[in-house]
Amino acid sequence: MKRPLHPGLISRQTDPANLESLFSTLDGRITQNESFYVRSHFAVPEIDPRSWRLRVEGAVAHPRSLSLDDIIKMPSATYAGMLECAGNGRAFLSPKHEGVQWELGAVGCARWTGVPLAAILEEAGLNADAAEIILEAADKGVAEKTSRPAAPIHFERSIPVADVRRRDVLLAYAMNGEPLPKAHGAPLRAIVPGWYAMASVKWLTRILVSRQAFRGYFQTVDYAYWSAPNGMQPERVPLSELAVKSQIARPAMKEAVPAGSIYRVHGTAWSSMAEIRKVEVTTNGGESWQEAHLLDAPLEHAWQRWEYLWNVPGARGSCTLMSRATDARGCVQPVAHDRNYEGYVIHHTIPVSVQIA
Amino acid sequence: MKRPLHPGLISRQTDPANLESLFSTLDGRITQNESFYVRSHFAVPEIDPRSWRLRVEGAVAHPRSLSLDDIIKMPSATYAGMLECAGNGRAFLSPKHEGVQWELGAVGCARWTGVPLAAILEEAGLNADAAEIILEAADKGVAEKTSRPAAPIHFERSIPVADVRRRDVLLAYAMNGEPLPKAHGAPLRAIVPGWYAMASVKWLTRILVSRQAFRGYFQTVDYAYWSAPNGMQPERVPLSELAVKSQIARPAMKEAVPAGSIYRVHGTAWSSMAEIRKVEVTTNGGESWQEAHLLDAPLEHAWQRWEYLWNVPGARGSCTLMSRATDARGCVQPVAHDRNYEGYVIHHTIPVSVQIA
Repeated sequence: MKRPLHPGLISRQTDPANLESLFSTLDGRITQNESFYVRSHFAVPEIDPRSWRLRVEGAVAHPRSLSLDDIIKMPSATYAGMLECAGNGRAFLSPKHEGVQWELGAVGCARWTGVPLAAILEEAGLNADAAEIILEAADKGVAEKTSRPAAPIHFERSIPVADVRRRDVLLAYAMNGEPLPKAHGAPLRAIVPGWYAMASVKWLTRILVSRQAFRGYFQTVDYAYWSAPNGMQPERVPLSELAVKSQIARPAMKEAVPAGSIYRVHGTAWSSMAEIRKVEVTTNGGESWQEAHLLDAPLEHAWQRWEYLWNVPGARGSCTLMSRATDARGCVQPVAHDRNYEGYVIHHTIPVSVQIA
Repeated sequence: MKRPLHPGLISRQTDPANLESLFSTLDGRITQNESFYVRSHFAVPEIDPRSWRLRVEGAVAHPRSLSLDDIIKMPSATYAGMLECAGNGRAFLSPKHEGVQWELGAVGCARWTGVPLAAILEEAGLNADAAEIILEAADKGVAEKTSRPAAPIHFERSIPVADVRRRDVLLAYAMNGEPLPKAHGAPLRAIVPGWYAMASVKWLTRILVSRQAFRGYFQTVDYAYWSAPNGMQPERVPLSELAVKSQIARPAMKEAVPAGSIYRVHGTAWSSMAEIRKVEVTTNGGESWQEAHLLDAPLEHAWQRWEYLWNVPGARGSCTLMSRATDARGCVQPVAHDRNYEGYVIHHTIPVSVQIA
């Protein structure tokens, strides 16, 4: 990243670049490209878009090698889709967890244009026993965690075949009407709506159709957790669906708020494949909750903004605010982090302490 | 283990008990119960054989709950089967790997009697989409490696459905004609011939038929390795088949050998589902190799003993011996440990240095 950073981005790691947006600057429903958070596992790969190809291989009738032109000529789709890093909010965990110390800004919502992955797979002809689609990226390096392959690996992640259509998975070449920026995966990236963003693989080079569940590093060691449903033995399960969550953009942490004023508390809320039914706000550390006003109509893959007009007390002191979202399935943000997810899936109600001045 | 140890066993860990046999005492083809190595992950579970049941559940038409009597009344099978711990020989690795520091003795060969797992599954009626058989044990505790489930887990391991018949998997209640000893899994354990012994689960309580590949701790974190066949991306693969291997019982490490004598170098050799074609011995650190004499006829699941009569040089000095097995598929022991297997699958030719006195 030789260019100076956009003022809306904060660097959390320089090599590779991991930049979060300043969530307190939230305004429109769509996050601009310059202030969209950047999550990288390895250095940005050098790709010449003219010689670049997307290979479609594995359990397919007709393997393909597609140029960017081939892809752009196919019927396109566009939707507003939000992405959240699975470690967003990690800085607020206690005890600390290793990994990038994201605060509130490893999340954003952009308009993505590209080709549905389902259309690409239809052309290639999925075999009847195809189970998962492995998305392989050009970026490569030595993995971080203790249990890792000895040699450098590419970033890659899989999605079950059934989720490709159900989730409108897109192979995107444009972001907010501009060509996909290099930092966001040019020339082509996946968008897997409703899943944590590790599945939205950037710098795609290969779509590998597999007959088996993929057990790569980013599915078993990283971006995975121990789960033991119904008294079964724990298994290593890849992270997938976003948990219901809301965040307060303003007031910011430790902001000074004028005593006796009416303050616009606002933020966004989201869930996976379910609209937000309500957002509640507390200004007294959880003693009582008031319903916020939803500003955006539900849109399948986007977040919804909300606001709450707060009658700030007349006396000086400090207050603790929290927001709490409930989705259409009745899922509610919890009060504490679920440690089973280790340093991931951080969606509990995060306190925002403010000074009344 | 309140009883004094058998003189043929060496303790490598006391809690839980991990005991290896003194491989230099090798004599018959069958290892006696008192000197058979003991590998435990957790404390020996308390089981009352009268109330004990084996549950057969999951993707089956007729779930079962079998008493020991039910199992003993079924047609039985007996065979000589060897077991080797996947970490056998770990003490000889450089650099050191964590885990029990086994020398040569985490291996043995016993006669097992029990019921074929295939017969149990036939009675229960496997569903068409059954993929794996999960063998769950009664022993339970907190896992060892850094990435582990927070709560205690049972020991368990899976085998693909196709391997149940192909490998004659047995649920054994007797060992060398005696009731299965407590330390070896009483009242019932699995024997998975030709696989490292982590699959031969002791203290069985449940046979769970699963439609998916199992991703439990002992399949993904422990007893697994990174594998990247054919330029594919690395995946976490559970250990399974034994690698071709031979071991020298005598001379022992640093043994003094009479100058000018004829010394009987002897040991055993084994492979997975393939008989041993030849064993070679070097007495000069690998400069030249001589063929040893195989003492046992091939027997599908057992090891084969071998000997080589060595004309010990007349002059004092030191010599380095090694043995090297080749199986019927042409697989040969390598000269060095394959680090891809981390602290497991240690089957390279291990040098035995002796003094000529």
